[in-house]
Amino acid sequence: MWPDNKITSLFNIKHPILLAPMAGPGGAELASGVAQGGGLASLPCAMLSAERIRKDVSIIRGNRATPINLNFFCHTPEPADPNRDAQWKSRLAEYYVEFGLDPDKPVAAINRAPFDAEMCSLVEELRPEVVSFHFGLPAENLLQRVRDAGCKIIASATTADEAKYLADRGCDAIIAQGAEAGGHRGMFLTDNVASQAGTMALVPQVVDAVSVPVIAAGGISDARGIAAAFALGASAVQIGTAYLLCPEANVPAMHLDALRSARDDATALTNVFSGRPARGIINRVMREVGPISDDTPAFPTAGGALAPLKAAAEAQGSADFTSLWSGQAVGLAREMPARELTETFASEAQGLLKKLGSV
Amino acid sequence: MWPDNKITSLFNIKHPILLAPMAGPGGAELASGVAQGGGLASLPCAMLSAERIRKDVSIIRGNRATPINLNFFCHTPEPADPNRDAQWKSRLAEYYVEFGLDPDKPVAAINRAPFDAEMCSLVEELRPEVVSFHFGLPAENLLQRVRDAGCKIIASATTADEAKYLADRGCDAIIAQGAEAGGHRGMFLTDNVASQAGTMALVPQVVDAVSVPVIAAGGISDARGIAAAFALGASAVQIGTAYLLCPEANVPAMHLDALRSARDDATALTNVFSGRPARGIINRVMREVGPISDDTPAFPTAGGALAPLKAAAEAQGSADFTSLWSGQAVGLAREMPARELTETFASEAQGLLKKLGSV
Repeated sequence: MWPDNKITSLFNIKHPILLAPMAGPGGAELASGVAQGGGLASLPCAMLSAERIRKDVSIIRGNRATPINLNFFCHTPEPADPNRDAQWKSRLAEYYVEFGLDPDKPVAAINRAPFDAEMCSLVEELRPEVVSFHFGLPAENLLQRVRDAGCKIIASATTADEAKYLADRGCDAIIAQGAEAGGHRGMFLTDNVASQAGTMALVPQVVDAVSVPVIAAGGISDARGIAAAFALGASAVQIGTAYLLCPEANVPAMHLDALRSARDDATALTNVFSGRPARGIINRVMREVGPISDDTPAFPTAGGALAPLKAAAEAQGSADFTSLWSGQAVGLAREMPARELTETFASEAQGLLKKLGSV
Repeated sequence: MWPDNKITSLFNIKHPILLAPMAGPGGAELASGVAQGGGLASLPCAMLSAERIRKDVSIIRGNRATPINLNFFCHTPEPADPNRDAQWKSRLAEYYVEFGLDPDKPVAAINRAPFDAEMCSLVEELRPEVVSFHFGLPAENLLQRVRDAGCKIIASATTADEAKYLADRGCDAIIAQGAEAGGHRGMFLTDNVASQAGTMALVPQVVDAVSVPVIAAGGISDARGIAAAFALGASAVQIGTAYLLCPEANVPAMHLDALRSARDDATALTNVFSGRPARGIINRVMREVGPISDDTPAFPTAGGALAPLKAAAEAQGSADFTSLWSGQAVGLAREMPARELTETFASEAQGLLKKLGSV
């Protein structure tokens, strides 16, 4: 059925297509659709309570044993830095004035908890088939507990060095996240955005660097990208942006509008929304403050001071201060339910692979 | 033989593999090797005299009718700007002090002449099968003369918008230059480096935007990249960096050493060497002054003030101020003669395509 069955065998899925975990837009409904289409159901847990995760897992599993991927962040939270927060607030002061907001009102804390002992216990309880990590890996004792719970472990690499680091620590597969990918970059051994490689260059170099299967991510929104990923040596693909247009995704209307009209050159990597580089559709705050700013406080706190601006702008119908995560291949995405989209990806990619080889 | 024969038919070549024109490293010998291997011989003319071009074309054509591609720059030269030159000199002053150089000594003029009437006459005389342009297109009357000389016309696009612009003006094929590509970016309708798309995302969007065949460039250094390009809808590939390791390429020893040890995350886009964004291996001047600087004068004059630093550093065995052009897939390149490399690309890519389709 596929040129490479390492990932479909490892995860016990029909098609080598993983739903990218997207904190916010991705929930149980989107994951269920992908699973019904034969792909891997991923649930982004970084912003969810244990109770919510339990409930979502139960919805996704339904009446049958659906393989499921729980995704967690692994950043190291930095200590509070009031000076840096003040510097960021000061950088945004002109916008507070513009919207008539009180700059001295305390901003809401932004919480993106890294994987910890509590979440590890939940993993042991729920025993998902796959656990994926972003921004590196958790402490070795937690990683061992995940392994002992019978979960396959995967994580994102943005360089061949990061891939080797992950493989050396026992990851069962590596997600090679090319620079085209939307949302947060998983980079954890480097902070140099300028040297991040595109999917075309990254995937084969990661394939050559590790002996475990590689999952290609970044710039893949249709069958052509899937077939290309297999040509590059990947054993599967992880797709995010294209699933944002599914009716099951929880995407705010403004974000959806931006996605529908975005072209190949509509996005950039920015750190203004969270303090870490992530790819989104270029808007006013990215243009004027970023796309990369030296003034942002540590991840994930940058969003705190932006929240009042986001709320005020959105109330006026503007997405000028809203993160509009998107990869560079958004222009290829087609709107259909997640199950149908996954089945379409699979059948078109298989057809294309066959056609490419029948010369 | 290939899933798509549009480009091989159009250019009358055996394999859909174009040597990227690389001003400096690329000459008659490298082009001849690629032609003998069945690819398209490209001669970068931006730094060559008419006499030299005549001679090189005669060497490449030899005793048989070898299709040949003459490549020209199409930038619009900007008027001299002594203030900006002084600002750039001032930015580099600390390095002049470090090397004991006289900052008041006039710097050599850098000449990268855009395609003009004289070169157009040469094209009419030599009648190359293909003429390729970088940084846009020449004036319409010159373009018409090239067309009337019977040459196929191709040019680089870094966005779908640029591709449409080129196709609307009669280009016979479009080179979709992904962000992974080494050397100068062909961008001409945008100057936003941050929004340039990777090959994986760019190629299918360009394919969808134009009706002429598309040549994929950027991040392709082995058979996997070639097969992936066809999966993405390309009708051919243009390969540069991988050919730099051929013995026929004129690559200075320091550059060659850097290429041999470069990894996926070794490069960045920089404007410090010429005033225009180009991808090279990160070195001291890129790290400390760039990679993108607001102080550089217009293309191509930035290199003038760098030249004495380059010479002084190189005399000490250092490439700290030398442009080390390279794409992101340099780590995949293998060292062999250009003919053998081209034949290997072709046979391995055909084998891989067959294998991908025989499931």
